[in-house]
Amino acid sequence: MSKSQEPLLAEDRPSSEQSSERLVEEEDALLTGQHKQQQSKYSWPFWREIGIFAWAVIATAAVIVLAVLYQHQQTSQPAKSGGWGNNGKPSGKRNLIFMVSDGMGPTSLSLTRSFRQTKSGLPIDDVLVLDQHLIGSSRTRSTSSLITDSAAGATAFSCGMKSYNHAISVLPDHSPCGTVLEAAKKAGYMTGLVVTTRITDATPACFAAHVNQRSEEDLIAEQEIGEHPLGRVVDLILGGGRCRFLPNTTDGSCRDDDKDVVAMAKKNGFSYVDDRESFDGLNFGSGVKLPLLGLFARTDIPYEVDRRNMDDVYPSLDEMSRTALRALSDATADSEQGFFLMIEGSRIDHAGHGNDPVAQVHEVLAYDKAFASVLDFLDKDTVDGVLVGTSDHETGGLATARQLHDAYPVYRWYPDMLINSTHSAENLAYQLRDHLKQDKGSREDLATYIREKLIEQGLGVYDATDDEINRLVDNSDPWPASYIFADIISRRAQVGWTTHGHSAVDVNIYASSPKHARSLIGNHENTEIGDFLRDYLDVDTKAVTEELKEQLATSSTFKDWLGKPLEESKTADDSDHYQGDFKRNLECACGAVH
Amino acid sequence: MSKSQEPLLAEDRPSSEQSSERLVEEEDALLTGQHKQQQSKYSWPFWREIGIFAWAVIATAAVIVLAVLYQHQQTSQPAKSGGWGNNGKPSGKRNLIFMVSDGMGPTSLSLTRSFRQTKSGLPIDDVLVLDQHLIGSSRTRSTSSLITDSAAGATAFSCGMKSYNHAISVLPDHSPCGTVLEAAKKAGYMTGLVVTTRITDATPACFAAHVNQRSEEDLIAEQEIGEHPLGRVVDLILGGGRCRFLPNTTDGSCRDDDKDVVAMAKKNGFSYVDDRESFDGLNFGSGVKLPLLGLFARTDIPYEVDRRNMDDVYPSLDEMSRTALRALSDATADSEQGFFLMIEGSRIDHAGHGNDPVAQVHEVLAYDKAFASVLDFLDKDTVDGVLVGTSDHETGGLATARQLHDAYPVYRWYPDMLINSTHSAENLAYQLRDHLKQDKGSREDLATYIREKLIEQGLGVYDATDDEINRLVDNSDPWPASYIFADIISRRAQVGWTTHGHSAVDVNIYASSPKHARSLIGNHENTEIGDFLRDYLDVDTKAVTEELKEQLATSSTFKDWLGKPLEESKTADDSDHYQGDFKRNLECACGAVH
Repeated sequence: MSKSQEPLLAEDRPSSEQSSERLVEEEDALLTGQHKQQQSKYSWPFWREIGIFAWAVIATAAVIVLAVLYQHQQTSQPAKSGGWGNNGKPSGKRNLIFMVSDGMGPTSLSLTRSFRQTKSGLPIDDVLVLDQHLIGSSRTRSTSSLITDSAAGATAFSCGMKSYNHAISVLPDHSPCGTVLEAAKKAGYMTGLVVTTRITDATPACFAAHVNQRSEEDLIAEQEIGEHPLGRVVDLILGGGRCRFLPNTTDGSCRDDDKDVVAMAKKNGFSYVDDRESFDGLNFGSGVKLPLLGLFARTDIPYEVDRRNMDDVYPSLDEMSRTALRALSDATADSEQGFFLMIEGSRIDHAGHGNDPVAQVHEVLAYDKAFASVLDFLDKDTVDGVLVGTSDHETGGLATARQLHDAYPVYRWYPDMLINSTHSAENLAYQLRDHLKQDKGSREDLATYIREKLIEQGLGVYDATDDEINRLVDNSDPWPASYIFADIISRRAQVGWTTHGHSAVDVNIYASSPKHARSLIGNHENTEIGDFLRDYLDVDTKAVTEELKEQLATSSTFKDWLGKPLEESKTADDSDHYQGDFKRNLECACGAVH
Repeated sequence: MSKSQEPLLAEDRPSSEQSSERLVEEEDALLTGQHKQQQSKYSWPFWREIGIFAWAVIATAAVIVLAVLYQHQQTSQPAKSGGWGNNGKPSGKRNLIFMVSDGMGPTSLSLTRSFRQTKSGLPIDDVLVLDQHLIGSSRTRSTSSLITDSAAGATAFSCGMKSYNHAISVLPDHSPCGTVLEAAKKAGYMTGLVVTTRITDATPACFAAHVNQRSEEDLIAEQEIGEHPLGRVVDLILGGGRCRFLPNTTDGSCRDDDKDVVAMAKKNGFSYVDDRESFDGLNFGSGVKLPLLGLFARTDIPYEVDRRNMDDVYPSLDEMSRTALRALSDATADSEQGFFLMIEGSRIDHAGHGNDPVAQVHEVLAYDKAFASVLDFLDKDTVDGVLVGTSDHETGGLATARQLHDAYPVYRWYPDMLINSTHSAENLAYQLRDHLKQDKGSREDLATYIREKLIEQGLGVYDATDDEINRLVDNSDPWPASYIFADIISRRAQVGWTTHGHSAVDVNIYASSPKHARSLIGNHENTEIGDFLRDYLDVDTKAVTEELKEQLATSSTFKDWLGKPLEESKTADDSDHYQGDFKRNLECACGAVH
């Protein structure tokens, strides 16, 4: 800034000391109007010189005025440019944090905002941090469906290209597409992934792995720790999903083979941490040695509403995010390039799949807190940087309104009903499962346990009907218990859901400031968000694509690297047409994708 | 622009002709480097003069460079400023068009966009005109509920203040609040209202009337045509709702009294048109005499999907909008002030209430077309102007995803199912009602009529189940027939709804350009949209409030002008709490508000 604040052309401007004393005298004369008596003393050349001098002075004054005006316009931009040069192109060392609120649709915001206002007695115009940073919305369809899954959604972000549901950064022709994280790594940036679900799940996978089907999480785990044609591309990994990294010869594994992926990671240079104690040892990122692999849950980190009661076991999204920011910032302190970090509020999506409004509001608040921490980091950091956040899709067909009866509905929903719930529906279902493993006593005992321990204490609902209790006692309902708990609380809060899957509504785009992501103001295709990430870092994903293709074509090591291709019927783009399956859907054995 | 494009300080810049020939010679000498040989000819004063001259030339060059740079920054704004001065404040003659998409939530866009792509075989990134003009979103809660109605919603727009559901530009203390339309009229603007519902319905009413309860449409009709403390405030009215303007002694009236409001309007100076023929006589607004009252339907103008088959009876939203723009533009051609026009796509809301995706997509497309026409008008008009559009709330809890069975849902919805529907569910219900009034024959005959004429030909559904047909034949269903038709098509398209009422999700904000409504980029309280309207027109709604209060307090004519106050329980702000009514809701005799 100091350079650009200098008045323009300052060096060319003659200082007043350079004018002779005689000229000063003459100027005084002009100003005082005392010169007329002495007119005879001075010749034409004198007056000509006076004229030129006056011209010079006026022109110089104009230069100063204009320079100040121009300067003022330049500096009416924020003090920190966010890494954008004056020409609208990114410049200088910079960091990019990309946040994904998996499954968070527009209604999640009104749901959570009103919950927070009600819980904390805040005024009706109190808003989330996210609300203050909305800049647009994103269209989400994939090549194979109007309703995307997280794999096609994250491929749009990572590669800036549309693909089919289930695709992990591969295109419909089953060729890999270079990701922004890979290209960033090659350009000298440090890179990180932070999630609350399995690190092998679709969203994080799309940044550092390539497989034809998202279900191949064994392969994804290996790629993420560097079994990759480009070598290791991720410097920092924090999240859940440990079971894919452990050989199936050990407890806690969910791998199909006996590969010890943790050992492979260590061989590739990773430090490894796997519990709260070792997380605390990271000291919020100060003095962390990269690369770092931190896996703090066997599969998902529990929902925030449950995790807060297990804070000594699992770190929060905010804690992991702050740790990653500090670690990456310190590691790049002396580098020419900054870092690229992807942070996912992964389980907003799961709360949507479970149709659980209690889990949902706490997940969104946890994401909002992490979002605020990133803003705070950017605000204080000396390196320029930008935060962009969005969702891959909406989950649940969530509505803050639910008609319970045929009578015309009142215009109400009741956020206060969510306040007294101490657990997620998922957690209550786990409790019920564990209770049923023990001697559960009589049917009546079980009903009492469910009513008092789970529904009253757990959900905060004191008017459960016998029908509702019986659905749980009989265990013959086609819905899992978690769906039934979620339905009990949703009905009372008058929160509606239309599906346990995803929906096609546009999702919100957020940024640290509209000025930081001008090209994302308004409504955009999700691939344009990928374009933004690539352009802001000024990296070459196409070159990465070529390199990946080359390796797959020539290296026997990576021959089967992409896994089995998905059957063509699932990747086809002509399936958005009604095929008379209204009545047949019940029989459909549809694979569960999230 | 011509003024601001002149280089700054141009008048102070000496032209080169003013310098003497000798100086030009000297300059040539300097440039050619031919002066050294002649050095001895020139004295110290000569060189001093040359120095001052060079200084003047350089300073002048700097002035030109800086002026161009400064100018460039100023003019990097669009050629038309939209009525915004360089200081960021509105200036000069300008027009404001405010569009309301009643009941259109975020999902309405993805629904309609995909319908249009599928119907017309457009590429997957083809978007609506609206999509290209998204700038933010609006929070919608009222003082009495998290879920607003159109009355409180439109009061936020018209007065810039929150009030209770049912309030027509009155505050919770039952005092009137001055509206932007009233203030605009007082400031010399011309004003207009265009709707497809009753002109006495909540949204238009809030701009030109004040009553405690939206149901008092008799009163609203009178106020709109000038029985108002401020006199007539609307110059142009186009829409439906004729029945409130006719005395109850005549056919087609729905008034409680025998007032002839059309006659009152004529007495107040209005021209009156009431059918397609007389609308066509308006010649798209050229040569229209204002004030003008145009009422083209007894109640609502039919849904666009039905209206297009009755184009000789009812004008479209787009036709009415273009007529209003031309009429108001011509009427203000020689005025200092421009106009304020509110255009409502009223029945997007009704399609939501009816849970009818077919009616919905055609209503949104009709609104999109009118939006495009307004943009086109602004683009071509010589007067600056701005278009801002938003919704008051979402209706229906619409989701582009619907789980039909307990099995995990496929990620699909089927827009093609909506293409073959030729009628709205409402229209099919009317057809059924009319059919039932005649001799309907045997039960089997009725079933055949319903299946073939209504469901196959009308809805384009060829796999209706016997259960579905029987619900319509038996006429014992708690749902009206229109809901059943809408459900049949919604299920097949896999479109979900959670209520026949409103929901609390944030709604989109649109503008002719982000630059035209900078203060509305991002997420905002709905009252901020009202603030924008007032500030852009630079009018004083507070002064109008004071004048209204004064009149109510002192004039016997306007003593009962606001109608009966709404009972306090309905305006209270503490009703958003669950009161154990989960089981009781069925008995609730809830008033229908839209």
